[in-house]
Amino acid sequence: MQKEVTAFAPASVTNVGCGFDVLGFALDDPGDEVVVRLNGHKGLAIKNITGDNGMISREIEKNTAGRAASSFVNEIGFKEGIEIEIHKKMGLGTGLGSSAASAVAAVVALDALLETKFDKRTLMKFALEGEKLTCGGRMHADNVAACLYGGFIIARSVDELDIINIDYPDDLYCTILYPHIVMDTSDMRRILKKDISLADGVRQWGNIAAMVAGLMKKDYKLISRSLKDYIIEPVRSALIPGFNEIKNAALDNGALGCSISGSGPSIFALSRSGNNAEKIAGAMQNAANKLGVENEAFISGINKAGPRIISKNF
Amino acid sequence: MQKEVTAFAPASVTNVGCGFDVLGFALDDPGDEVVVRLNGHKGLAIKNITGDNGMISREIEKNTAGRAASSFVNEIGFKEGIEIEIHKKMGLGTGLGSSAASAVAAVVALDALLETKFDKRTLMKFALEGEKLTCGGRMHADNVAACLYGGFIIARSVDELDIINIDYPDDLYCTILYPHIVMDTSDMRRILKKDISLADGVRQWGNIAAMVAGLMKKDYKLISRSLKDYIIEPVRSALIPGFNEIKNAALDNGALGCSISGSGPSIFALSRSGNNAEKIAGAMQNAANKLGVENEAFISGINKAGPRIISKNF
Repeated sequence: MQKEVTAFAPASVTNVGCGFDVLGFALDDPGDEVVVRLNGHKGLAIKNITGDNGMISREIEKNTAGRAASSFVNEIGFKEGIEIEIHKKMGLGTGLGSSAASAVAAVVALDALLETKFDKRTLMKFALEGEKLTCGGRMHADNVAACLYGGFIIARSVDELDIINIDYPDDLYCTILYPHIVMDTSDMRRILKKDISLADGVRQWGNIAAMVAGLMKKDYKLISRSLKDYIIEPVRSALIPGFNEIKNAALDNGALGCSISGSGPSIFALSRSGNNAEKIAGAMQNAANKLGVENEAFISGINKAGPRIISKNF
Repeated sequence: MQKEVTAFAPASVTNVGCGFDVLGFALDDPGDEVVVRLNGHKGLAIKNITGDNGMISREIEKNTAGRAASSFVNEIGFKEGIEIEIHKKMGLGTGLGSSAASAVAAVVALDALLETKFDKRTLMKFALEGEKLTCGGRMHADNVAACLYGGFIIARSVDELDIINIDYPDDLYCTILYPHIVMDTSDMRRILKKDISLADGVRQWGNIAAMVAGLMKKDYKLISRSLKDYIIEPVRSALIPGFNEIKNAALDNGALGCSISGSGPSIFALSRSGNNAEKIAGAMQNAANKLGVENEAFISGINKAGPRIISKNF
């Protein structure tokens, strides 16, 4: 049997209300799995993709995991044949960082397969090459960073690859309501205004500063007061059917806060304890169902570890 | 002798590079002193002001400390005579929150004199009434909050009076270079653009998020990377003669970061240890002197306690 490694990398929630392009966290579940396998040929090839309904390109340079892997092997000058299997465990275009998860799983699997022992910053550089395919121009590192670093992260600067892990309360849970509508990440960027008022900016950085303090102090009330978005949510939520009703259902049922995950359409709510998260999931689904919005819900803790090797055969 | 109380309230550095209108900290020194004294008459009167070169109004409603005091006594319906002495210990219009310090010292002194035992949030409401005189329209709470709460603060929201104290490294020191030029706080607000680009906004909230994390984790390198202002400093620094040279002198001599204090013209630099702060002060003064900019320098630790009662006679 050829040497092979399978890695899991988690879904992630980014923006987190007040931290557009900067704040994010990783979920325990769902996540993508990527297998990398030496095959005795030359170069990279995508052998198989599952869970994508045939939507994702099998071409290395048009596939986020493929491009991340290609950036990895080019960097070290590895020319032997590697085949890649990608198992998508979440919908595409959900706003849960699916493309980032596949890219991260690929580079983490390669790092184990080729025993390169790269640090996270280096792995991130490779994974971001994949993410470039989806970002519609402006790079943002928050999905890849949350997925790769685990826990809560601040992506201070993409140019400097400056990623900071911060503490957060252990019993923080996340409910995701994924409405089954299709949105394009690039479109969701294009609809944003290029300018914002200084006054809105001040509110936003007041909130993200307080949010970071709330997470690190484990102050739930402060997290709740800070989880507000005056800039992005008002624009994007208009494209998510039932957003206001679903958000209100979450808040009315004890969510600390609720907003759009990444560029949507998934809606996330934070809460204290898994029981609360379940109750909130029920309420959000009820609200969506009443409006005829087909949907599914996920409940997850915050994933402290990030990606992991599932199996290793060599 | 009539009942009297003297209170000290500290100068403060606000904005702190990346946190316009939101982030601030209190200094050990300088600070203003206010005496409040029952005088057997009716109503409030300003008896004396020192250190202002006659620049500050003696009319209660046109004086920040007077107006804060008036808001205080009106709230509790206290009608007996109180005379106020204000001892300014720092220049006016320095960008070090002199008006906030006088207002805070006044309400803290009154709280002791009248034994009202108000919480900080309530005292803050009174002090902000004074600050309204100086803000040129838009309220900002950061100077009053830093002065009253001490330490490092996030002023998340003025409307909600939501002030959060955050941890910071014990050996953090501040150097202030005060160039002797006159600037008007209202003017310094008016020159700011009403809109900013979303891209600059993202950089700014990335930096403030990381700055809060850096302070709370006591990570000096992170504080240093985050103490950058792409929005306000480029506009205001053009009005401060020698700003770039003075800032570079601070950074070249080991400052973690350097920017404008409040609306200027004072320039602050953060550093690790009092020795560094002194070396930086020398370098900043040299740079200013070379350019013929008259100046003075202060070196201070971060003031954890905020205002204090200096004396109490009754």
